[in-house]
Amino acid sequence: MMVEHTVKAFDEDITRLRGLIAEMGGLAEVAIQQALQALVNGDETLAAEVVERDAKLDALETEVDAMAVRVLALRAPMADDLREIVAALKIGGVVERIGDYAKNIAKRVGRIEGRTKFEPLTLLPAMGEVAAEMVHDVLTAYAARDPVMAREVIQRDDKVDAFYDSIFRNLVSHMVENPATISSAAQLLFIARNLERIGDHATNVAEMVHYSATGSYPDDIER
Amino acid sequence: MMVEHTVKAFDEDITRLRGLIAEMGGLAEVAIQQALQALVNGDETLAAEVVERDAKLDALETEVDAMAVRVLALRAPMADDLREIVAALKIGGVVERIGDYAKNIAKRVGRIEGRTKFEPLTLLPAMGEVAAEMVHDVLTAYAARDPVMAREVIQRDDKVDAFYDSIFRNLVSHMVENPATISSAAQLLFIARNLERIGDHATNVAEMVHYSATGSYPDDIER
Repeated sequence: MMVEHTVKAFDEDITRLRGLIAEMGGLAEVAIQQALQALVNGDETLAAEVVERDAKLDALETEVDAMAVRVLALRAPMADDLREIVAALKIGGVVERIGDYAKNIAKRVGRIEGRTKFEPLTLLPAMGEVAAEMVHDVLTAYAARDPVMAREVIQRDDKVDAFYDSIFRNLVSHMVENPATISSAAQLLFIARNLERIGDHATNVAEMVHYSATGSYPDDIER
Repeated sequence: MMVEHTVKAFDEDITRLRGLIAEMGGLAEVAIQQALQALVNGDETLAAEVVERDAKLDALETEVDAMAVRVLALRAPMADDLREIVAALKIGGVVERIGDYAKNIAKRVGRIEGRTKFEPLTLLPAMGEVAAEMVHDVLTAYAARDPVMAREVIQRDDKVDAFYDSIFRNLVSHMVENPATISSAAQLLFIARNLERIGDHATNVAEMVHYSATGSYPDDIER
């Protein structure tokens, strides 16, 4: 009876912890999408909202940490359950950083002049869509403990990297031809880099989901 | 007797865990210094060494994780001890990422042409020195559980940010005047950005050290 009670309480804790992380993932995904929407439309109000809303992600990470520590202290979980709590701690940290990258993109919106003249402004939203999808899918994989889906997210990182290379070349050519726009183009370069890092972080989470579900890292992955 | 034995074993575990993190910190610090040395001298052999040696940091992080999980499982630590293990898990992750930034700097060394013509090449090593010192000092603060020293590291991040702003402006002017060097200048821009991120991560660790030592985050810090 006692054991059953403890197991049930632990399951509830885990469910709550997973719920917090799902909430973080949702906020991060929206932050990426809205940061790029703000960029494309030069919408500084929306950009400011994205920056402001990042505080919610920080607060949720603190909540995940506190909850994980409480579960570890109260339930002293073993084996799979312990691995699960440690994964939650780490994944919460990474999702918070994904939010930081989205915030950083939003912060750059106001520093870009003559937006319509930049071809990468059409590539960046497409790149952002892939990155936001990776974040979405890796958290679905986490919720479903699905290592196959996690692997699939990892493979998609190549697409983000290809976008990055293409945007980088494109922006450098643009700079060469239009020296007056270099400062703005540099902002777009950093935005592309932020999206590339978001893809890396989603890949990181996917590796942790794989580890949490199977006990091993995907072996074809360069860590 | 039994209790004493357990306490002693736990202390040994913690000491070992702290030792692993100190080792990671040392490797990260050297990686930053050597990446910048490789940059300044255009030394691609040294750069390749930095890239290669990063695998050691990844392996150490995995070791920290495994050890922390083992300690949590075997000793079910409470209160301060638990907070300490959680801090070790998180700090290990951040130091590994600091190593990734150093690796990224090293990877860019071979992509820069006409190095001696860039003024930021004198600013970047100075910036790197501050960043490497922050990493060094924050790990000393961690070893000594010293919240005052942790705060001091946090304050130094402004210096890194000032370097970044200065290098950014400098490189953009350089690009405008020398369009042929834009591609190389963009690499230097990313290197400056990597150093700025290293400063941010050292600040993150400092916040965790403060938290681990006092139970609260420094309240004048924007999270």
